[in-house]
Amino acid sequence: MIARKSSSGTRRSPEDSRAAILAAATLEFSAEGLAGARTDAIAKAAGVNKALLYYYFHDKEGLYGAVLQHALGDLLQRITQILDSDRTASYRVLCYAATHFDFVASHPEYRRLMQFEMMRAGAGNSPHFAKLVELFFRPLMTKVISVLEEGIRSGEFRRVHAQHFLQSMISVIVFYFVALPTLRAMMPIDPLSAVALRQRRDAVLDMISGSLFQDRESAPGVIAEVNQEVEAVSPVSEKRKRGKKQ
Amino acid sequence: MIARKSSSGTRRSPEDSRAAILAAATLEFSAEGLAGARTDAIAKAAGVNKALLYYYFHDKEGLYGAVLQHALGDLLQRITQILDSDRTASYRVLCYAATHFDFVASHPEYRRLMQFEMMRAGAGNSPHFAKLVELFFRPLMTKVISVLEEGIRSGEFRRVHAQHFLQSMISVIVFYFVALPTLRAMMPIDPLSAVALRQRRDAVLDMISGSLFQDRESAPGVIAEVNQEVEAVSPVSEKRKRGKKQ
Repeated sequence: MIARKSSSGTRRSPEDSRAAILAAATLEFSAEGLAGARTDAIAKAAGVNKALLYYYFHDKEGLYGAVLQHALGDLLQRITQILDSDRTASYRVLCYAATHFDFVASHPEYRRLMQFEMMRAGAGNSPHFAKLVELFFRPLMTKVISVLEEGIRSGEFRRVHAQHFLQSMISVIVFYFVALPTLRAMMPIDPLSAVALRQRRDAVLDMISGSLFQDRESAPGVIAEVNQEVEAVSPVSEKRKRGKKQ
Repeated sequence: MIARKSSSGTRRSPEDSRAAILAAATLEFSAEGLAGARTDAIAKAAGVNKALLYYYFHDKEGLYGAVLQHALGDLLQRITQILDSDRTASYRVLCYAATHFDFVASHPEYRRLMQFEMMRAGAGNSPHFAKLVELFFRPLMTKVISVLEEGIRSGEFRRVHAQHFLQSMISVIVFYFVALPTLRAMMPIDPLSAVALRQRRDAVLDMISGSLFQDRESAPGVIAEVNQEVEAVSPVSEKRKRGKKQ
């Protein structure tokens, strides 16, 4: 099983086949949930036979775990790059926040997967959750907290409780997407439109810097730099490839 | 059907019977979900016969809607009292935040109901959601926004975008409870213990006042007053009457 032909007849590497299965599975799981997803449909959409899918991922549950790890791995990689850079703590914290926000905004399938996984974990029924915490949530928290503490030491930030402040930051970043039904009912424009997302991202950065920065006057300048950076990398835009609401 | 005997044989007013049905239904719906809840079990737990339940609430869906309205009505009433008082805008905003936090902390059944209702509304399947928005979410938002704007005018608050700032406040207040599975996996103590809740509430008030108050030095004094007030009314404590995790 070194290489397989795709449905179009061209030869594909194992990495390409694996990636194609993960991409197809991400869409299927986020649209149908774990119970409703069909491995037949995933194999077909990926252009591989079902035996290969089982060879790589063992079973549907294994494939589902791999999909979660893949999505979170992508996010962690982007964030790590920012947090490990040599910019000021102020810039790194706000750039992390903007990048996290843009990632969630532009990945509706990630939102559905995480919401489902949280409910499953909440009921104590997820075999993947402990691993996700160790591989992604904990490293992410550790990294952001260390930047927060660095900024407190240097005097850029006020003396907040770093762990709680990070929790509050994550709340402000992601809750908008959890509350979409309420926002849809209350906002005059589509909360996922580019205009609404840009406005919300600005508000997120304003809330965080307003509370964190020792010198609030410096915030608009840092926010402008961050906006320039994230819009060059991943403009907030409506990337809902599938018609379904989330 | 003016009065009925309860299971203990004493005469009950219609209001008492109705309240007993709502209380029993709140527990049943939050434990079993809408589909799993049984009106038989609710009537039995409330000590009424099933005909009376249907007489008051028409059907299971009607009862479910009444349960949601009852829970949100209780929260709105507490919050309105605070926001309409003659205290400073700073005090009212933080006291609202602390009260909302304590309400969610001490009502596990409310958390489960709202999470379920949000998912249902997100999928476009709730006949109740539009009404909940008009009766509760919109009045609550209007009231808080007007206090935020009052504080901006008086110079107590910085010039934030009031609607977005409120969204961020609500995020910081409630997301802790949405993220419980992650917190359980990462925190050294039970996130619903009295110690953890008190620490989190302090962090919520610090995040909000740190971002909002023009004079940050005044925040600790206001937070101390708010803590005194809310702990006299509804101390944060673990009120999980049923064994189930949420």
